[in-house]
Amino acid sequence: MNHTPKSLEKLIKEFTKLPGIGRKTAQRLAFHVLKKPREDAVSFARALVDAKDTIKFCKKCFNFSEDDLCTICDNASRDPGVICVVEKASDISILEKPGRFNGTYHVLGGLLSPLSRIGPENLNIKGLLERLSESITEVIIALNPSVEGEATTLYLAKLIKPIVPLISRLAQGLPAGSELEFADELTLSRALEGRVEIG
Amino acid sequence: MNHTPKSLEKLIKEFTKLPGIGRKTAQRLAFHVLKKPREDAVSFARALVDAKDTIKFCKKCFNFSEDDLCTICDNASRDPGVICVVEKASDISILEKPGRFNGTYHVLGGLLSPLSRIGPENLNIKGLLERLSESITEVIIALNPSVEGEATTLYLAKLIKPIVPLISRLAQGLPAGSELEFADELTLSRALEGRVEIG
Repeated sequence: MNHTPKSLEKLIKEFTKLPGIGRKTAQRLAFHVLKKPREDAVSFARALVDAKDTIKFCKKCFNFSEDDLCTICDNASRDPGVICVVEKASDISILEKPGRFNGTYHVLGGLLSPLSRIGPENLNIKGLLERLSESITEVIIALNPSVEGEATTLYLAKLIKPIVPLISRLAQGLPAGSELEFADELTLSRALEGRVEIG
Repeated sequence: MNHTPKSLEKLIKEFTKLPGIGRKTAQRLAFHVLKKPREDAVSFARALVDAKDTIKFCKKCFNFSEDDLCTICDNASRDPGVICVVEKASDISILEKPGRFNGTYHVLGGLLSPLSRIGPENLNIKGLLERLSESITEVIIALNPSVEGEATTLYLAKLIKPIVPLISRLAQGLPAGSELEFADELTLSRALEGRVEIG
């Protein structure tokens, strides 16, 4: 017999629906909510529904946005001539962190994966092609260096090569601060292939 | 500049307030909520506030409960003469799992800890003493084998010794399925002290 009150059990179940949260963690989180003041639970609840209600996709790049255009597409100081293609909206925050990129983004919404039945028609590729006019000087394809990421990069590169003068991808090689000793063979061979002239 | 829309940022912040959830995990969870249908967010939000509104403490044992008495205190088939003292309500689910205990519980709501300024007056000790009548045959003190747990166990034992005929604590020793080789010295010495006659 389960001695957890029904409404507590329901809350635990809701927490287990989140990715990477098992029964034990869900229990811990639910107990935490019970310990904190009611305002905290209400504010959390409101944030959940508010985010869902106000966040839509940017009409241009499919980033998360509260308006028709996201804060990047809508920023006049960003260069609309350079488009960085990413898999998902959360990748944008990651690429923005170093503060080195001043172009715009395009969110694919996934990667090509025949096994999961994700073909070109399931990704935001049509929207990307519509953005590619003569004023686009470079498209940077910034997808994960995984099998699906590689396949999607090659597919996109082939598709847009006739339209865009420069197509690039992120460099592959040794992570900063790492040691040769611990690099896997594939990383090493790509670091070798991508070697850069110095001096 | 932060390019996360305000309402999304708010949701991420709410997630980071949960124990053990850092910024990166919070981001992942918030993106998950955005990906799922609106009903899911609403159901999660409702569960948060519902749990907070309906769950109170059992008047007798301070377990979580939707009624005045929790399902254990209110169960006529449980032996009210045996009280198992635990630190927190979530410990009850853990002790109920093996299904070997048929008594009742009492939730202290913490452990004595002079460093964190938690004294006897901050724990549900008064409620425990009020439950101790002549009909109580045993009190099992089931606190963590930590410094605070030990101190609280000794404090309680001394306090209730004049009232209750039998006071016991959980056995300390080797965990089932473990190997001698990996046991720490304290566990080993307690396993030796607590050795049990066989044959």
